[in-house]
Amino acid sequence: MANSEGSKLWGGRFVGNTDPIMEKFNASIAYDQRMWDADVRGSKAYVRALGEAQLVPTGDVDSILRGLEQVSEEWAKGTFEVKPGDEDIHTANERRLRELIGEPAGKLHTGRSRNDQVVTDMRLWLRDSIRTLKEDALQLVATMVERAAVEIDVLFPGYTHMQRAQPIRWSHWVLSHAVAISRDVERLQEIRRRANVLPLGSGAIAGTPFNIDRELLRRELEFDDISLNSMDATGQRDFVAEFLFWASLCLTHLSKMAEDLLLYSTKEFSFVTLSDAYSTGSSLMPQKKNADGLELIRSKAGRVLGRCAGFMMTIKGLPSTYNKDLQEDKEAMFDCFDTLHGALRVTTGVMSTLKINRLVMEAALSPDMLATDLAYYLVRKGVPFREAHGLSGKAVFQAESKSVPLNQLTVEDLATISPLFDSDVSSVWDYTSSVEQYSAPGGTAKSSVTAQVQHLRKWLQDQNQ
Amino acid sequence: MANSEGSKLWGGRFVGNTDPIMEKFNASIAYDQRMWDADVRGSKAYVRALGEAQLVPTGDVDSILRGLEQVSEEWAKGTFEVKPGDEDIHTANERRLRELIGEPAGKLHTGRSRNDQVVTDMRLWLRDSIRTLKEDALQLVATMVERAAVEIDVLFPGYTHMQRAQPIRWSHWVLSHAVAISRDVERLQEIRRRANVLPLGSGAIAGTPFNIDRELLRRELEFDDISLNSMDATGQRDFVAEFLFWASLCLTHLSKMAEDLLLYSTKEFSFVTLSDAYSTGSSLMPQKKNADGLELIRSKAGRVLGRCAGFMMTIKGLPSTYNKDLQEDKEAMFDCFDTLHGALRVTTGVMSTLKINRLVMEAALSPDMLATDLAYYLVRKGVPFREAHGLSGKAVFQAESKSVPLNQLTVEDLATISPLFDSDVSSVWDYTSSVEQYSAPGGTAKSSVTAQVQHLRKWLQDQNQ
Amino acid sequence: MANSEGSKLWGGRFVGNTDPIMEKFNASIAYDQRMWDADVRGSKAYVRALGEAQLVPTGDVDSILRGLEQVSEEWAKGTFEVKPGDEDIHTANERRLRELIGEPAGKLHTGRSRNDQVVTDMRLWLRDSIRTLKEDALQLVATMVERAAVEIDVLFPGYTHMQRAQPIRWSHWVLSHAVAISRDVERLQEIRRRANVLPLGSGAIAGTPFNIDRELLRRELEFDDISLNSMDATGQRDFVAEFLFWASLCLTHLSKMAEDLLLYSTKEFSFVTLSDAYSTGSSLMPQKKNADGLELIRSKAGRVLGRCAGFMMTIKGLPSTYNKDLQEDKEAMFDCFDTLHGALRVTTGVMSTLKINRLVMEAALSPDMLATDLAYYLVRKGVPFREAHGLSGKAVFQAESKSVPLNQLTVEDLATISPLFDSDVSSVWDYTSSVEQYSAPGGTAKSSVTAQVQHLRKWLQDQNQ
Amino acid sequence: MANSEGSKLWGGRFVGNTDPIMEKFNASIAYDQRMWDADVRGSKAYVRALGEAQLVPTGDVDSILRGLEQVSEEWAKGTFEVKPGDEDIHTANERRLRELIGEPAGKLHTGRSRNDQVVTDMRLWLRDSIRTLKEDALQLVATMVERAAVEIDVLFPGYTHMQRAQPIRWSHWVLSHAVAISRDVERLQEIRRRANVLPLGSGAIAGTPFNIDRELLRRELEFDDISLNSMDATGQRDFVAEFLFWASLCLTHLSKMAEDLLLYSTKEFSFVTLSDAYSTGSSLMPQKKNADGLELIRSKAGRVLGRCAGFMMTIKGLPSTYNKDLQEDKEAMFDCFDTLHGALRVTTGVMSTLKINRLVMEAALSPDMLATDLAYYLVRKGVPFREAHGLSGKAVFQAESKSVPLNQLTVEDLATISPLFDSDVSSVWDYTSSVEQYSAPGGTAKSSVTAQVQHLRKWLQDQNQ
Repeated sequence: MANSEGSKLWGGRFVGNTDPIMEKFNASIAYDQRMWDADVRGSKAYVRALGEAQLVPTGDVDSILRGLEQVSEEWAKGTFEVKPGDEDIHTANERRLRELIGEPAGKLHTGRSRNDQVVTDMRLWLRDSIRTLKEDALQLVATMVERAAVEIDVLFPGYTHMQRAQPIRWSHWVLSHAVAISRDVERLQEIRRRANVLPLGSGAIAGTPFNIDRELLRRELEFDDISLNSMDATGQRDFVAEFLFWASLCLTHLSKMAEDLLLYSTKEFSFVTLSDAYSTGSSLMPQKKNADGLELIRSKAGRVLGRCAGFMMTIKGLPSTYNKDLQEDKEAMFDCFDTLHGALRVTTGVMSTLKINRLVMEAALSPDMLATDLAYYLVRKGVPFREAHGLSGKAVFQAESKSVPLNQLTVEDLATISPLFDSDVSSVWDYTSSVEQYSAPGGTAKSSVTAQVQHLRKWLQDQNQ
Repeated sequence: MANSEGSKLWGGRFVGNTDPIMEKFNASIAYDQRMWDADVRGSKAYVRALGEAQLVPTGDVDSILRGLEQVSEEWAKGTFEVKPGDEDIHTANERRLRELIGEPAGKLHTGRSRNDQVVTDMRLWLRDSIRTLKEDALQLVATMVERAAVEIDVLFPGYTHMQRAQPIRWSHWVLSHAVAISRDVERLQEIRRRANVLPLGSGAIAGTPFNIDRELLRRELEFDDISLNSMDATGQRDFVAEFLFWASLCLTHLSKMAEDLLLYSTKEFSFVTLSDAYSTGSSLMPQKKNADGLELIRSKAGRVLGRCAGFMMTIKGLPSTYNKDLQEDKEAMFDCFDTLHGALRVTTGVMSTLKINRLVMEAALSPDMLATDLAYYLVRKGVPFREAHGLSGKAVFQAESKSVPLNQLTVEDLATISPLFDSDVSSVWDYTSSVEQYSAPGGTAKSSVTAQVQHLRKWLQDQNQ
Repeated sequence: MANSEGSKLWGGRFVGNTDPIMEKFNASIAYDQRMWDADVRGSKAYVRALGEAQLVPTGDVDSILRGLEQVSEEWAKGTFEVKPGDEDIHTANERRLRELIGEPAGKLHTGRSRNDQVVTDMRLWLRDSIRTLKEDALQLVATMVERAAVEIDVLFPGYTHMQRAQPIRWSHWVLSHAVAISRDVERLQEIRRRANVLPLGSGAIAGTPFNIDRELLRRELEFDDISLNSMDATGQRDFVAEFLFWASLCLTHLSKMAEDLLLYSTKEFSFVTLSDAYSTGSSLMPQKKNADGLELIRSKAGRVLGRCAGFMMTIKGLPSTYNKDLQEDKEAMFDCFDTLHGALRVTTGVMSTLKINRLVMEAALSPDMLATDLAYYLVRKGVPFREAHGLSGKAVFQAESKSVPLNQLTVEDLATISPLFDSDVSSVWDYTSSVEQYSAPGGTAKSSVTAQVQHLRKWLQDQNQ
Repeated sequence: MANSEGSKLWGGRFVGNTDPIMEKFNASIAYDQRMWDADVRGSKAYVRALGEAQLVPTGDVDSILRGLEQVSEEWAKGTFEVKPGDEDIHTANERRLRELIGEPAGKLHTGRSRNDQVVTDMRLWLRDSIRTLKEDALQLVATMVERAAVEIDVLFPGYTHMQRAQPIRWSHWVLSHAVAISRDVERLQEIRRRANVLPLGSGAIAGTPFNIDRELLRRELEFDDISLNSMDATGQRDFVAEFLFWASLCLTHLSKMAEDLLLYSTKEFSFVTLSDAYSTGSSLMPQKKNADGLELIRSKAGRVLGRCAGFMMTIKGLPSTYNKDLQEDKEAMFDCFDTLHGALRVTTGVMSTLKINRLVMEAALSPDMLATDLAYYLVRKGVPFREAHGLSGKAVFQAESKSVPLNQLTVEDLATISPLFDSDVSSVWDYTSSVEQYSAPGGTAKSSVTAQVQHLRKWLQDQNQ
């Protein structure tokens, strides 16, 4: 790698050579080449603005545009060759452009700094990637909503604290996760809005000294807005931090759903059966079928939050404007995108192919889960709830002592607890009617679950417009 | 603490005693009492809804309302006495209500669970606290904007990589931080919108079985919306996670500004002098004046991100709905609020009272900071920027070799580098005209900085409406 | 709070007043008063060293010692009154000493800085607290080991990926957690060794200019060693960071055990029944018994790692020596101690009182869990393992297709898969003999589990010496 | 990728196909191939143990060993071809072995699970990598110690709170960082001890059912010890977590040193000049020389702590034994190794080539930094320190008011503050004699710094033995 120095963008005043270990430690080309398309698009828009400002003659503008087109094609075809001195994508593209068109290439960087160039590339890349993730998330929500619509009549135990709580609709569970993902989509839109702001024209720190038309750049690159302050524009990475946290929060939602499904797919619960397409076996135990897909999803929340926390730590206490520490932004951003892109689609696959075991689910409903209804029975006869709760608790205790299910206590048994218990108590022991009580908005009654389905279908339509 | 069991809300089926260590480990009253007001307000609205639904007779409704009023007054006056069995604020308030009004108190909890109660309290508390933080942040932005307006003529070195880069306006630096905080305010609004959603009426998991009018509850408590799904409503803490991250990101902005000011207030820079009101001395060294206020602000980004990362870790992989793990939400939320409330106001104090040392600032501008302008000089004579950059670098090297400032190179010296250098190169060496070149939006020219001031003044007006 | 300035240790050169918000933001007395005892002990040792060095006359030494004794008694009795200007425990104690003994109090700080004082206090406090945590952890290990010894004959399913894997001994599971905690104890000893180093005599940064005998201070305060470099001694908080991470790692172990037990105590598993002493009920659902103790333990891993990550972020990129940012060290340290002290003892309580449901455990063993043994049967007849694994997998599939348990396949059925299956295959279907195969060190055979018990008993004896 | 299923190690009972997205999400071969050597070594030892136990005939043992040797060579030469179905390094190596030697390859996995195999590979890999990092760290310490020895006579300002505090020796600063790294080496040894424990022979969960001699495996693979419990052995990743945290803490030390040097290399401080080998320039500003090497080091503390926090979050609340979530362990481990390996060597390079600007350093010493000495002057005349501190503070204030340096106050000026000031006060104003006062262990006097150098030289010798 003799004298890789020569090709550096900043070689003028330097006399020593870079330590090769330092060169490797410093280079980002291994990962930032991923932004080749954004880099080329940004440069195209920029050279047009330079042309408009008469800083670069039309002939050179055209030749730069043609050269950039070819750079782009080489990347697209996989024939672009990264060379030793190419420390980052900007250097690589400019180096190649010079090889292709010669001297006019040197005009492309007029008034531009890598400080505003790199952040323009990142914002373009992220904006487009957000669109992909939004589609992934909408696909998942749509899958869940339609599944909920179809399986609305299936009842099973709702759990709190991992203990059976009250009978609920399976679809109510499905929608509880769909609602969370729909919030993630809304957050993603907000992040997109703030990411989609043009920093180009901020230079290294002070702005651009030429009559570059930033509004033209904005339109050309389809940004929504223009950055307000050049020091902020080149030195802030809020949009990255926000995206990393968005990914983390979304993955906590997926990890929650994965954990539920992992529980439900244990032999002991047996509520659901995962498709073989998302399971693996054991290298030792022939009978094993492991829900690896779900475990991976659960695990990724850690990975992604780690990226977020790590990046926040990196920017903590940094002085204003560009410092090389910011180079940590890209790997984190790419990794979180890849992880979410995989996790959302695997989750959609799992939810599309999952088999539910309705009989097992319904068999898991047990009379003690209606103890709250027993209390409500008394409330309806005028007992204050707190007292009714205590009396129902006593009935539970009596049933446990007698080793009978709660609904097998006789009216006489119950009468020892409260004289208000009468033969009509038998009406309590019906899971469907229990569930149908919860008809207020957000509840688990059929009407209320149907309303949720309709709400989300409408929301999906609005999103896709 | 003999039989503290007796007063628990859930004592019915239990026979053993709680281990006192467990009791302490479990109790949240030490910190969640801070939500006493939200808890009382939520209960008042709830009992009205119970009355409307004819689940509690009007007389009892009135007596509960009067009782709650008194509970509220006791908290406000500091006379409310927390007793051993009061594991949380909900238990404490209900226990006290029962002492005050007797048996009707037991009707208040009809159809309500602590699961929907606690999250209602938290959302009320956070919504109101967000208003406080918004005011703190607006106060800071306003202070900075007005300072920027007044000191717009002061120039000093802009730094990248902690090295002198280009001359900029001091106000440009001030506004770069104000702009970041203004984005924080916008994010805070979005979080408020998602936090301000009514979960009450979700029960423990399945919803409410009574004809509680959730719309009435919403209006009464001034929420913007109603939760869509009861399992999600009681089990999600997105609004907490979002708030914790908001606080973290905002503090990275404050830490960046603090770091700059700490640098600028070293003896070596001496650009600014911190007011004694935000400094401390040394217990050993009599001459020391330490910028403790700024160091504390810098440090808090860690504290707050730690809370955020910790809470994310706690919720990672949790099953659906309420699990006791969620109890970690409150201390994190309170601590981040307190930290931000302090940090924003101290920063405002620092920025209001900071003295700038204009002469030192201006003296720190050095001709080498105009090397980019020297390159632009050549660009304007038709040299491609990349080549001009290299030629200017050679001039810097020549000046260093001769141990003279860059502007002391003679035209003859420069001519050895490029024949295009001529006597008009002297026009380059003027800091004010250098700065005035950057007149595109976002730049450091006076017109552009003034535009930023106006933009932010307008934004502040819009916020305060 | 008129002129609280007056009593500050560093008031000499200051003329302004501190902003009361800043004063509150800066003060640590609310939490660092917890180190009152360490602070007094450190001061006693220091004044003796000052006496030895003839920097303070014997009479003053005696009067300072008597004064400090009284300060100590006031704290112990709870009568020490914290006053407005007392920003930290050092200031408070010195202020009180002056009130008690007058002018000689001013000699105590000779050559000492708060920079070396505070870190001495922290190291003393942590060293003593580590002893407490070690005892807590040993108690837990001892409880588990003895439980394992008693219940060694109970078999139940071992799980991987939350799926039934192979039959194991319950005691094997218990010991897998005990072994992890025993490693935590070993790590804690290493941290203690590095924490127990004397920093006193390092001054603010440069060391002590007087002939203070640091070796005497070390002996007096029972430190193992003396710090090597005064800048490092006053500016590093490695011992805090290490402790915070220790706490985090230990809590991941407890969270793992808690998660297992939460699973085992679901209705669906029903392997264990938690004592009422560590459970709570529901405010709404009378039948609920929630394992809150375990959920809290699971949650605390997040809290504590958050403290660790937060503190690491705070110290990232700080310059050398003392910066006020370090003030974040104490709350983190205290909180992690309290959390671990609670969590370890609650876990011990849970493990002491847990009831196992042996019949349910054994009934959960199913023939498919012996599929690996079926493969081994073929291996013993000469089939390469990888092939045998495939053949056993086919048997599992055949049994599932026929809807019979694996051990109900006839020899004829099996012969269609491999001719090597013969009537002796029936010997495979015995859980106890399956388990007894695993007699190599670390395995689940009785002999091997007994060896683990013995190893840990011996280890416990060594620890307690 | 038609039917990549066929070659999976666990294909027997499965009928569906894996979703290609899932396949990619699941595969680890892209990164775990890095452990090819450890995997081969582990397999060689294992097949020998199978031979000893007569589970595999000698001929097959030999053929497996020869096959593994060839696999190893292919990796070393870079000719090993990873194929579609190779989900991880274990599968890849076993698949290739089968291609090379046919059916006997199927015997290698007898009684072994990927669960004990992967953790054996990781422990081997990490143990060897720790040796590399130890050497890197020792090289750094050695460089710093020798630099400190050579430059021991250079004085410069010691800072606390980024403010000039007291004069110190430059070497004292250098050693303060060397001492921190030496502690990192000691921690690394402890982690090595716990990492270097053999898990092989633990199977999937229950141990090995064959008479595999684990002691033979231990010797063969040069582990120090054998794991105690098979469930713990396969399910814990403490050694990874500890390593990740070690890397984080070590990087906070490097980040602290980097921050100091970044400050010292600003134009304003100008104490040091970084070699061009570790600097870069600006793409826009020709005069810039940026200390990118140091900024990168500072940034990496975030990256690495992020990995640590992320992995801790991943393992939080996981059930016992192997869960696929653990797959997050390897990328984190590799990344932290690479980062530290780079950062330690770049730091060594920076410290070897750094130029100090002695004249600037000494010129930065100012009389006010001797204010503590002025107080000590009074202490030596019998004034209690606290009072002396106040009086010296008044002198500082007086000098500031008069706009003269502290040492330009006349004896008459000083006498207005305390009658004890006399003409001998002039002896205070000598930086060298000030520094020489700090001769107690750990101080900045020449004798004390020399003792530190000697201590570390001896320590380095001990380490290298």
